[in-house]
Amino acid sequence: MQTELSKKLGIEVPVFAFTHCRDVVVEVSKAGGIGVLGAVGFSVEQLREELDWIDAHIGDHIYGVDTAIPQKYEGMDKSTPEELVAMIEAAIPQRHRDFAEKLLRDAGVPEWPDEKDPVSLSFSVQQAQALVDEALTRPKCAMIVNALGTPPPEIVQQVHDAGRLIGALAGRLKHGIAHKEAGLDFVVCQGSEGGGHAGEVTSMVLWPQMVDAIAPLPVLAAGGIGNGRQMLAAMSMGAQGVWMGSRWLIATEAQAEPAQRESYKAANSEDTVRSRSFTGKTARMLKNEWTEAWEREDTPDALPMPLQGYLTFDAVRRTHRYAGVGDCQKIAFNPVGQVVGQMNTEQSCRDIMFQLLSEYAEALEQVNTVTTQE
Amino acid sequence: MQTELSKKLGIEVPVFAFTHCRDVVVEVSKAGGIGVLGAVGFSVEQLREELDWIDAHIGDHIYGVDTAIPQKYEGMDKSTPEELVAMIEAAIPQRHRDFAEKLLRDAGVPEWPDEKDPVSLSFSVQQAQALVDEALTRPKCAMIVNALGTPPPEIVQQVHDAGRLIGALAGRLKHGIAHKEAGLDFVVCQGSEGGGHAGEVTSMVLWPQMVDAIAPLPVLAAGGIGNGRQMLAAMSMGAQGVWMGSRWLIATEAQAEPAQRESYKAANSEDTVRSRSFTGKTARMLKNEWTEAWEREDTPDALPMPLQGYLTFDAVRRTHRYAGVGDCQKIAFNPVGQVVGQMNTEQSCRDIMFQLLSEYAEALEQVNTVTTQE
Repeated sequence: MQTELSKKLGIEVPVFAFTHCRDVVVEVSKAGGIGVLGAVGFSVEQLREELDWIDAHIGDHIYGVDTAIPQKYEGMDKSTPEELVAMIEAAIPQRHRDFAEKLLRDAGVPEWPDEKDPVSLSFSVQQAQALVDEALTRPKCAMIVNALGTPPPEIVQQVHDAGRLIGALAGRLKHGIAHKEAGLDFVVCQGSEGGGHAGEVTSMVLWPQMVDAIAPLPVLAAGGIGNGRQMLAAMSMGAQGVWMGSRWLIATEAQAEPAQRESYKAANSEDTVRSRSFTGKTARMLKNEWTEAWEREDTPDALPMPLQGYLTFDAVRRTHRYAGVGDCQKIAFNPVGQVVGQMNTEQSCRDIMFQLLSEYAEALEQVNTVTTQE
Repeated sequence: MQTELSKKLGIEVPVFAFTHCRDVVVEVSKAGGIGVLGAVGFSVEQLREELDWIDAHIGDHIYGVDTAIPQKYEGMDKSTPEELVAMIEAAIPQRHRDFAEKLLRDAGVPEWPDEKDPVSLSFSVQQAQALVDEALTRPKCAMIVNALGTPPPEIVQQVHDAGRLIGALAGRLKHGIAHKEAGLDFVVCQGSEGGGHAGEVTSMVLWPQMVDAIAPLPVLAAGGIGNGRQMLAAMSMGAQGVWMGSRWLIATEAQAEPAQRESYKAANSEDTVRSRSFTGKTARMLKNEWTEAWEREDTPDALPMPLQGYLTFDAVRRTHRYAGVGDCQKIAFNPVGQVVGQMNTEQSCRDIMFQLLSEYAEALEQVNTVTTQE
């Protein structure tokens, strides 16, 4: 199976695996797709360590790196990381800090062990630039993807000068059009059912509109794809590949505490919610007491990005590390799309890929039969 | 193109057109699909008149009738229509009446011309039973569809005894499973992007889960289908046909005031909202001042079904009849799915069908090419 984009990249099948786990990156690339490491929240040192490992294990295959470079946000004019931190620290009300901390304490989630571990400025331009610089030193990193908004022209130029592709996510038509105008190589178009940040319009409606709106630029379909039938649906609507995130969360190779995996396995498709309570922008995740707590009338409202993300940085790392401690799962950050309802068994990435492509082939045969039946 | 369900019905293509317009019913059935007349809110006399016309114009083709028989609601124990009306009248607060009337008056929407025209008890069992009785006297009415919930066993039996098929809509897996257990012949599975009543889970995620959950019972895919690529996506995921509603709203044969058509044509896919403000249950429609007015903190909350529907019966008929008068479109009831963003040109039903099937064939050829490309 080949589309223009998969040919350009030289991969066997147009399956793009978004993941925070280096093992998943390597396994999916080795199975014929391409792993894309989600590096939001990583320090440069962390990214270096992960890419060293990936480079050493991926053989001749390629991979991608996903970062987040917002176009504008509060404090963007601050030039140094120190100034940015000072601005953010000053802007977060004590009531919000106390409320977040109380939720963690009430659920019995332990403190982070080392007070000196810094809070990462996930969404600063400086941080993103440093991550892109690091990624581009790696010959096997074939593409950069921006998780949030159109990347600045300098970065687009830098990536192209290095001979790599650059794309970005879009949950609205106008964002996809802006990406095209900025000279990107592809758009990852995510419907509202997807995990993490997404818009209001669902994949079924948004994908074909995006394909038409930015043609001939390739669209990768994201949001709602977990099996081969869904992949065929995406390709039927003109996508040049599928971008899957949720499905790998319970892959055997994924690094996650068992308690978090269990939360995903137990959830059905009605158990997610779009919430601003972790990043400050609407993102889809498992519904729980944390997401509900920030919605109540007598509680603080989520702050805008990047304030809320800074405020909850500690909650995210503590609920991931101590996923099985106390009532942690009642307040844990478990981002995932509505396909979570289909995710019930842990399989290796290779098996997931095999099953995805077998089911795709079977579904295509089936629909060909139905169509020609008289 | 044939599925088991389309073969059973004896139609040429598995395209099910849900519409309130008799002309659309006739045109779609004559073009090879099957028109399904939405009769919610019709009196028996009205239905008789519409079906007389359809029977006279549809030739040898068949059609369906869609009604609404809720399983339970406030006042269901009341036995006569008069008692039901009395209960509902007593249960609607004056504040709600005044608020609805003020919105209509402020927008300059004229009064309904004849005070004696009764308010229909759209959601009563008695009303639905009478409509089903009438529909089953028509040999060309091949199927009954329940718009809301599993129909009572007596009605399932009655429809089967008459040699017709019966199906029902489902926006949640558990509803589809209940329909299967009740002995229905098919399920119309509608994702959250669909117009009218729908659940939280999107078509991309819900359809394949429903296909698996109720196999081998046929699933008709609804919600998000307006073109051939979307139809192919639905068939790819195992649907036995597509159920389209929004697309016919601006068909040239559809009966609607020009101002309402213009609202649909001007809207993009981000202009809809799921709102309780008309029926009391969450339904998707164009966002406007009416839907926003019922959300504000200083305004009344929508009442539960069937109270809100009774309260807004007058608003619905007035905003449809006087769609172009004053600021009517600012408060009009314009139910539609997210595909409204694709609906920009008025075409005949025949042209819509032709384009749908041509694009389907083209998309299938395209995906076959991509899949076999090396």
